[in-house]
Amino acid sequence: MKTIRMKRFIDLADFSREQVLDLLRLAQALQDKPQPHALVNKVLGLVFFNPSLRTLASFQAAMARLGGSSFVITPGQGTWQLETQPHAIMKGAAAEHIREGIPALASYCDVLGVRAFADGKSLEGDLNESLFRMIEELCEKPLVNMESAMNHPCQALADWRTLDELQVPMRAKFVLSWAYHPKALPLAVPSATVHMAAMRGMDVVVLRPEGYALPEQVMEKARLAARNSGGSVSETSDRYTALTGASVLYAKEWGTTTYYGDSEADSKLRADLSDWCVREPWFQGTLPDAKLMHCLPVRRNVAVAEEILDGPRAVVKRQAFNRLPVQMAVLHRMLA
Amino acid sequence: MKTIRMKRFIDLADFSREQVLDLLRLAQALQDKPQPHALVNKVLGLVFFNPSLRTLASFQAAMARLGGSSFVITPGQGTWQLETQPHAIMKGAAAEHIREGIPALASYCDVLGVRAFADGKSLEGDLNESLFRMIEELCEKPLVNMESAMNHPCQALADWRTLDELQVPMRAKFVLSWAYHPKALPLAVPSATVHMAAMRGMDVVVLRPEGYALPEQVMEKARLAARNSGGSVSETSDRYTALTGASVLYAKEWGTTTYYGDSEADSKLRADLSDWCVREPWFQGTLPDAKLMHCLPVRRNVAVAEEILDGPRAVVKRQAFNRLPVQMAVLHRMLA
Amino acid sequence: MKTIRMKRFIDLADFSREQVLDLLRLAQALQDKPQPHALVNKVLGLVFFNPSLRTLASFQAAMARLGGSSFVITPGQGTWQLETQPHAIMKGAAAEHIREGIPALASYCDVLGVRAFADGKSLEGDLNESLFRMIEELCEKPLVNMESAMNHPCQALADWRTLDELQVPMRAKFVLSWAYHPKALPLAVPSATVHMAAMRGMDVVVLRPEGYALPEQVMEKARLAARNSGGSVSETSDRYTALTGASVLYAKEWGTTTYYGDSEADSKLRADLSDWCVREPWFQGTLPDAKLMHCLPVRRNVAVAEEILDGPRAVVKRQAFNRLPVQMAVLHRMLA
Repeated sequence: MKTIRMKRFIDLADFSREQVLDLLRLAQALQDKPQPHALVNKVLGLVFFNPSLRTLASFQAAMARLGGSSFVITPGQGTWQLETQPHAIMKGAAAEHIREGIPALASYCDVLGVRAFADGKSLEGDLNESLFRMIEELCEKPLVNMESAMNHPCQALADWRTLDELQVPMRAKFVLSWAYHPKALPLAVPSATVHMAAMRGMDVVVLRPEGYALPEQVMEKARLAARNSGGSVSETSDRYTALTGASVLYAKEWGTTTYYGDSEADSKLRADLSDWCVREPWFQGTLPDAKLMHCLPVRRNVAVAEEILDGPRAVVKRQAFNRLPVQMAVLHRMLA
Repeated sequence: MKTIRMKRFIDLADFSREQVLDLLRLAQALQDKPQPHALVNKVLGLVFFNPSLRTLASFQAAMARLGGSSFVITPGQGTWQLETQPHAIMKGAAAEHIREGIPALASYCDVLGVRAFADGKSLEGDLNESLFRMIEELCEKPLVNMESAMNHPCQALADWRTLDELQVPMRAKFVLSWAYHPKALPLAVPSATVHMAAMRGMDVVVLRPEGYALPEQVMEKARLAARNSGGSVSETSDRYTALTGASVLYAKEWGTTTYYGDSEADSKLRADLSDWCVREPWFQGTLPDAKLMHCLPVRRNVAVAEEILDGPRAVVKRQAFNRLPVQMAVLHRMLA
Repeated sequence: MKTIRMKRFIDLADFSREQVLDLLRLAQALQDKPQPHALVNKVLGLVFFNPSLRTLASFQAAMARLGGSSFVITPGQGTWQLETQPHAIMKGAAAEHIREGIPALASYCDVLGVRAFADGKSLEGDLNESLFRMIEELCEKPLVNMESAMNHPCQALADWRTLDELQVPMRAKFVLSWAYHPKALPLAVPSATVHMAAMRGMDVVVLRPEGYALPEQVMEKARLAARNSGGSVSETSDRYTALTGASVLYAKEWGTTTYYGDSEADSKLRADLSDWCVREPWFQGTLPDAKLMHCLPVRRNVAVAEEILDGPRAVVKRQAFNRLPVQMAVLHRMLA
């Protein structure tokens, strides 16, 4: 891998475990010994179909620390809306199609990063990453997934680095738990997280209420990763069982999969679930120093109580910071 | 020209044909042999009164590839609205006047780029470029027109380069055709395009339905350019006549000039014109390998059919890409 | 100071007069002899809870001119809204709390700049800078106040430099005058200005209509600065008395302090005050070449007449420009 330039960073599953470890070593190497001129004159284009805070700031900072530059395009804000439907008759709000927009933007830069959340209507379409696959086809330059319908590989890589820094053992128990949120959120982070933890070799438990089981394809992909790494993957709706002996509680909000795309059904289903706000009692059966992870943004006292976020269990700031070094490694592999 | 710094890039008509060719040679030279430190520490200020995709990305990338930097100001988004009316009593939404705003921004940078579309109310005012002339007076730094009421010289220069790359002969037939769009769009690109093609020496035909003739001043300016270059300029509403023998079909949407600024009259007029969507049959009488040009953004299956945009005739992506090298040449001439 | 890195630039009152003069000397030195590589690979993060024009452009340009880079975050535009209330139960519009957001952003950059206007509800809370103090606690990196509830030290430093450039004597009469505006504006600039002028050693008069006296804490802070510098601070609602013999008229709009946060009461109070638009007759008793200062943005013919803004008295463009060199000095002291 060291001598091959990476062209795509779309899904951690596209890489071997050894390749991921190599990226993490590069992240560390760039932190230990900065390469301030590695990407001089290189340009990163960033396209945000959806809002961002960490992703925008950490990618722009990553390029700057390697000597490069970046530009930001936000369809609908400063740029017109971009149509994504194939064969659209474009009489609506969108003035341009991604079939023109993406190739044009790609032609100006050396690597393109795109954030494009799930459509949230068809589970099959979202599982198939139909939008991101189109973008991939349209982009002749190296491409980074800054969160797609069902994936968030930059977050997954940052989280892996965080687990390593915390010296959480490979075979430790990692619980991905559903958490309450007023609205249905996409499946990208939970899907990426369960796969990442399985690929790292952990004993992964997905804890979620009825109606919020992760799609079978997501679970099967994680199980496959676990088989290769020596880890395991299971799921339950029993909080106590799930958390007993856990080293990590990774909290995340997501929408119903049983009634995918039906926001009314989702609202009814989650109406009684506001007690899925992570609080200290959740950690009764965990290892004493069990950690709380979350990809952020997090709604305080709704998804996770402030007593946790402000206490020693929370490692969310370190997760956020780790976006920077791992993305520097990805950009370096693509362009240096 | 090589030893004189350019202070303004407002209108291709401000330059001789030889000066334009020199800029195009510089664009090629910078592509063949990058000058990654030519504009180190130089700053480009970008002011967008109107939305942008290519323009923002290609200007920021252009500065970065020459070693410089840029900042972006979007009045109304992150910055308050800027008043443009002289002698305004500013009790309305705008918190600042361009008489203060433009000089302040210009003082921070080495070159300012401004996008300010037509007011769309007074044809005379727009033809006179009353707003851009004010901006020009207010800006003591080199200034780039990133699309004004009646001009878009960066697009015109990129299109000239595209024609050269395609080896379209100087005397070939170049048809600028009106195309359907749900709304009246400004005259900037058609005006710049007809002039550019005439200045290049082409046989230019403007094809448009009744009510959409380009203003006489625009046509006269193009005819003057044609006289100097050996080209010609004519206009018609007959599609077949216009396109017979054409090498290039440049499609563009614009609003009625007969009822300029009257959106209701424009709506009525265009109600029957939705068949002005460029499709393959339009090319029956053209040269076999005739090309389709468009400045983008383009509404698929409304202004141009996808069979054309996805086929071999369309060179719109190359036009978009060429914004980068020609703008690098302009910035280089201004600052290096 | 020359050997100590500055960690905070929050309030001019945190520095000695000698330290301020040293910053101004550094601003001049950087102008006379640019240091284009001083901040190579350094990253400035800019967070704008409120709109900006000069501040964004001048900070991005300042970093670029010193060889560094910057990124911009605008909560609510491209980034979700950020909650600022401690202990909020986050069921509303804000998706993230500053307790997570600020540390994450700070972790990506070398210095963070934050603009966060007054809440405008509690005068005591705003005087205490309750929000900015929270941000200060959350930010482990050097921090720049880009305008807080009651302060705007970058503007104050730029204004000080402008006064020096104009060779306005230290003991000259400096009148900060209230000016009309349709709405109640924050107290940040008037508070910073009265303190800056007093700290410079000037004879400061605050001229304002009834109901718009600056808070006693603001006046007392300015008086303390005057005692140390040899200047003086007084206030009046009598325009003629205030302006007699003045060298500088600094116009600024602000909201009522008598009915702080009560926009209805403020509207009534200012209904009769539209003659507080600075016009030439205001200068009848001033020194002949008295100057008009304003921090911008200014509403023409509402707060200040265009005859003044377009005439020789106005030095507002120089004030605006001076944001660049003084901010370069601040960033240099923090990072070089």
